[in-house]
Amino acid sequence: MSLLVTGSIAIDSVETPHGRVDGVLGGSSVYFSLAASLFSEVRLVGVVGEDFDMDLLEPLREKRIDTRGVEVRPGSKTFRWQGKYTGAMNEAETLDVELNVLAEHGAEIPPDFADTDYVFLANTHPSLQRGFARQFPNAKLIVCDTMNLWIQNEPDELRRILSAIHGLVLNDAEARLLTGQNNLVVAGLEILKMGPRFAVIKKGEHGSLLVSHDDLFVLPAYPTQKTIDPTGCGDTFAGAMMGYLAAKGSHDPDTLRSAMARGSVVSSFVIESFSVEALASVTIDDIEQRLKQLQAIARFE
Amino acid sequence: MSLLVTGSIAIDSVETPHGRVDGVLGGSSVYFSLAASLFSEVRLVGVVGEDFDMDLLEPLREKRIDTRGVEVRPGSKTFRWQGKYTGAMNEAETLDVELNVLAEHGAEIPPDFADTDYVFLANTHPSLQRGFARQFPNAKLIVCDTMNLWIQNEPDELRRILSAIHGLVLNDAEARLLTGQNNLVVAGLEILKMGPRFAVIKKGEHGSLLVSHDDLFVLPAYPTQKTIDPTGCGDTFAGAMMGYLAAKGSHDPDTLRSAMARGSVVSSFVIESFSVEALASVTIDDIEQRLKQLQAIARFE
Repeated sequence: MSLLVTGSIAIDSVETPHGRVDGVLGGSSVYFSLAASLFSEVRLVGVVGEDFDMDLLEPLREKRIDTRGVEVRPGSKTFRWQGKYTGAMNEAETLDVELNVLAEHGAEIPPDFADTDYVFLANTHPSLQRGFARQFPNAKLIVCDTMNLWIQNEPDELRRILSAIHGLVLNDAEARLLTGQNNLVVAGLEILKMGPRFAVIKKGEHGSLLVSHDDLFVLPAYPTQKTIDPTGCGDTFAGAMMGYLAAKGSHDPDTLRSAMARGSVVSSFVIESFSVEALASVTIDDIEQRLKQLQAIARFE
Repeated sequence: MSLLVTGSIAIDSVETPHGRVDGVLGGSSVYFSLAASLFSEVRLVGVVGEDFDMDLLEPLREKRIDTRGVEVRPGSKTFRWQGKYTGAMNEAETLDVELNVLAEHGAEIPPDFADTDYVFLANTHPSLQRGFARQFPNAKLIVCDTMNLWIQNEPDELRRILSAIHGLVLNDAEARLLTGQNNLVVAGLEILKMGPRFAVIKKGEHGSLLVSHDDLFVLPAYPTQKTIDPTGCGDTFAGAMMGYLAAKGSHDPDTLRSAMARGSVVSSFVIESFSVEALASVTIDDIEQRLKQLQAIARFE
């Protein structure tokens, strides 16, 4: 099945207890598509400004990523994010953000991409997500991410997009905020009432949870000992998950479970280095090896 | 194998978003021994004051719990705790605490109990724990709990008891505080350097982690939708775990994994009602049923 992602392409500067990097490639659609490309071809749709050094996309071009949907917008500047992780590194502190192109109109979906089967709408304003969703009338699966900003400031717009999609991926704090429920299973069930057929709740180092009409699944995170930079882990998780689903052409409960397990493992590589370093070099064999370890680590009688 | 627990016997008053109870039975050794008795006989060692209504121990006497080690101390008063849970209910807010007997000298171990094989020293001052540990020179397995108070205020005493025991059970915040490591796998490995052969790190709703020289195991919590009162869940987890180990007469890696799974399941019942209600009525069939569900919920290919 064909797979497409809409999301940000960013220039990141990140500081963690293990070091810092400046002006590196980031953004939700970048992490997503690199992770998804391990399993499937991916169509990337996003916007950069005329200041963007296109050589930064080299790691993507070496993969099964179709970058024809990357628009270079004259007169605009690329989205820039500067963040810092401290302590348990569960949440980034944003030191500076320049929305630039992200504050303008959304990306154009190339006409060739309108037939996409599996679509992931990374976090952005829910009305933009709705505009994207409308352009894939024949999609077999549309999955969204969102964030606290939209849950708090755009609840009506968010409800509209939720009623039009098949799956929602969000973190535990967002699930609690969206539903007013502290118990994450109950929160997941509340999300299903808003429209999606499944909710994937990400819990960082604690793994993830799938709640759907047919299934309840708890997955531990791969227990890496090396937490260098968590930037992009959530989008990586979603990318590997969607890439696996697209490759299998199914999102039945067992396939969704397997897809989330790939998401957990691929993001465990991403957290072990800065920016997209790991995604540029990790192989499917590396992933299968950690997947076996994760199964062994989680087994009990 | 014989099993013994030393710990508190308390009169609790607890308030949660789901209601409140006053003057109910609580305390680490009470939750522990009720949970352990599902799998094994248990010897309970603890102290109450002359104000204690011995009828409160009725639920324990109906189980395989030997209460000959419960000392009623004339002139002393029973330990009382008043707490409140709000929001995600991950941590109790202590509203009032009367240490009473707990601020006095420790419990006496009845001479008949000196031959105990498996010993659990619930949270108390580490020098008291060390005094207890010395009284079981032939124990095959001594496991301790601890808390932030001792980690911060009695680090030297805590190191002494850690070098004298086989296993440590503690929560994630305590593991981070004890080791200065945010990554929980690394924290677990640091704990092993302090003496214990294994560390069980409890993460509340997120499950638990076993780190030992031979094994690394991640276990999800049983995903209950009904979070009524988390009081005693940690001690219940330890009780079911130790009860299962004592029943099997082994603490090899696979048995430890199975024991932790029982701990997770039994505490999922405890959280669904106030005080020790659930532990008084839950059966081994209930537990086996949830255990199968937990395995099914955590399975992936």
